[in-house]
Amino acid sequence: MIEPGDYVEIEKDGKKWHGMVMPHHAFSGRDILVIKLDNGYNVGISIKNARIKLIRKGEKGSRKSEREIRKRAGEKIALLGTGGTIASYVDYRTGAVHPAATAEELAFSIPELFDVCDVDARIVFQKLSENITPSNWKKLAREVAKELNGGKKGVIISHGTDTMAYTASALAFMLKNLNGPVVMVGSQRSSDRPSSDAFFNLISAARVALTDLGEVSVVMHSSISSDRCYIHRATKVRKMHSSRRDAFVSINDEPIGEVGEKVIFYGNYRKIGDKKTVADTSINENVALVYYTPALSKEDFERLTEDKDGVIIAGTGLGHIRENLVGSVRKLIKDGIPVVMTTQCLNGSVNMNVYSTGRKLIKAGVINGKDMLPEVAMVKLMWVLGHESEMENIRKIMETNVAGEINERHKIS
Amino acid sequence: MIEPGDYVEIEKDGKKWHGMVMPHHAFSGRDILVIKLDNGYNVGISIKNARIKLIRKGEKGSRKSEREIRKRAGEKIALLGTGGTIASYVDYRTGAVHPAATAEELAFSIPELFDVCDVDARIVFQKLSENITPSNWKKLAREVAKELNGGKKGVIISHGTDTMAYTASALAFMLKNLNGPVVMVGSQRSSDRPSSDAFFNLISAARVALTDLGEVSVVMHSSISSDRCYIHRATKVRKMHSSRRDAFVSINDEPIGEVGEKVIFYGNYRKIGDKKTVADTSINENVALVYYTPALSKEDFERLTEDKDGVIIAGTGLGHIRENLVGSVRKLIKDGIPVVMTTQCLNGSVNMNVYSTGRKLIKAGVINGKDMLPEVAMVKLMWVLGHESEMENIRKIMETNVAGEINERHKIS
Repeated sequence: MIEPGDYVEIEKDGKKWHGMVMPHHAFSGRDILVIKLDNGYNVGISIKNARIKLIRKGEKGSRKSEREIRKRAGEKIALLGTGGTIASYVDYRTGAVHPAATAEELAFSIPELFDVCDVDARIVFQKLSENITPSNWKKLAREVAKELNGGKKGVIISHGTDTMAYTASALAFMLKNLNGPVVMVGSQRSSDRPSSDAFFNLISAARVALTDLGEVSVVMHSSISSDRCYIHRATKVRKMHSSRRDAFVSINDEPIGEVGEKVIFYGNYRKIGDKKTVADTSINENVALVYYTPALSKEDFERLTEDKDGVIIAGTGLGHIRENLVGSVRKLIKDGIPVVMTTQCLNGSVNMNVYSTGRKLIKAGVINGKDMLPEVAMVKLMWVLGHESEMENIRKIMETNVAGEINERHKIS
Repeated sequence: MIEPGDYVEIEKDGKKWHGMVMPHHAFSGRDILVIKLDNGYNVGISIKNARIKLIRKGEKGSRKSEREIRKRAGEKIALLGTGGTIASYVDYRTGAVHPAATAEELAFSIPELFDVCDVDARIVFQKLSENITPSNWKKLAREVAKELNGGKKGVIISHGTDTMAYTASALAFMLKNLNGPVVMVGSQRSSDRPSSDAFFNLISAARVALTDLGEVSVVMHSSISSDRCYIHRATKVRKMHSSRRDAFVSINDEPIGEVGEKVIFYGNYRKIGDKKTVADTSINENVALVYYTPALSKEDFERLTEDKDGVIIAGTGLGHIRENLVGSVRKLIKDGIPVVMTTQCLNGSVNMNVYSTGRKLIKAGVINGKDMLPEVAMVKLMWVLGHESEMENIRKIMETNVAGEINERHKIS
């Protein structure tokens, strides 16, 4: 009986392959055996007319016993799958990339995970992250609270990288009194590829899930080498490269820490408490993010912000827009629509006191987004509008740090 | 007679100041004398009841003779002022920052410039850069061509930093057959402040304006120290910090070179030719830049793109949007509206072949923005639509490098 983890030789049509048998995926034909070659690549081989020789059995026994130790210590974590590259694999019949369809596939795609901790894996939903919507954020927040209040030491969420930072910041605002770490993790290469970051990222996430970090974090490669992950604060992280493994970067703040063989925290972080975790998922999705450019006309601006309950502007520099838009901004605020200024520079803080344009915006009542990323300010405003309707309360909460999204130590340099 | 450049002692109300007399600004009261203190700060002192003692005369003579050498060599450059911090100063009666109002103020704000070259300075317009519009780009392109074809060795454009990268890329597309360098320069601190980057940036820009660089470039501090500027390619540079002196960063490409005591080019660059410089300013401003977020509804997308002649999407990751927007994209393209995909990650390239969402977008006819910055793709599409109306021609030009905006050597890493 050949099982996943066994090292085998396959001979077929005069060719020979050596490698470790990978777990079977639901979408792969039953006649396809996937093995991980010594060079790290996976290949799928039809077993029709193939001779398969067992070279040595996999080391399942020892893994199981380590897992038992974790189990006895009660250190069980939840792995919630949402889709994305990290839990996907190549269907070797068609070449297409599929998400893991079952909890087993999700967990099995990275068996090394069980060396670190005992895991209950399940699929919450299955989406490429570009398809994730605010209602998915709510669902996920509720599932996380359920797991933490149900006794899990921590929660890992595997997520597509495209919108992972949006989801992370939404969870950071929605989840209160965290009694366990919430760690989001993704990968830029599917686990089939030898250059995959899936293994290391997921194992690093598991290590973080076993700490006392009472914040939502994103754990991803710190560089293109495989020896370290950063622990990013959910509200300060942004995907800054379309393809590199170190695409995630903390902006306007240091990462919370790093993970190699062990977890190192760089400075202060919020610690887990012993109250029940609350998922406060009330949001108002009707918020516009207006990205200012010199080509944005007054008509464009008004069209974009019409019927919205809140507006985030990604302005230029210290927080500016063209002077002839200030009247439209003023009108929105007079009508009770909060308008928050952020900077499209991403790095650095808004400061509307330096130039005349900024002072006009302050006078019009624009809320200072300080050093918040435009996307994070948008998610925060959605969450604030789910709770508050009075302008001055909205302003106060938007300008106050709630979940690490405003770095009070941030100095203009 | 006390003149700018003289070192003086001022005594008033029992206090003493030592410093160099600064040129008088049009907006400052005639009764205010501005001196640069030894610590680098400027102060404005009312000369009413003040005693002013000349300590030593300024070194005007020697500067003039160096300037004469440049003059004889025919190395005269044009400095075109457009407003912004670099050519601004503090009115010491009110504390407000004003742009230089006359050519003399502009040139005089940095007298060290004349050590490097002979300069004809003039004001083209006077705007904080957040107020600059596409029609200003056209005006500027025509003025540059006039200067270069009129015999200037090169052109420096001083510009506010907020939208300098937009203007730079517009000039890069509009100006053909450059017969002299076009160097854009700004500063993050007004020249009144001891930490000002205005001096070093402008002098570095002048050094670049004397080379054979036949491209539009942006010259700004390479780090927070004052010893080096980078020469950024106009179509690859982005303002990446709201306040730091090294805010400008080349994205998806190396800078063209650096400037310290002299200019060093890192690799290949386009050299100036001997044809006449052409300002081809035909553009179509009716282009939308859609910044995708999970909160962007189908209605938002359609409202944003309605009646537009071209659309740039700043998608997620490798170039994605939510699946339920693909139909709206398809409809736009069927109606003859070009839609170009870029990535909001800024770094890295679009690749729509990897995931199913991308493949659907390719099938719908979306143009591949490759490694172009979203803002640069927008400016380019405005320029392309000023010349072409046939979809396949638009696609071909958008996907081909015209002015350094697509880095053909860019590899997905």
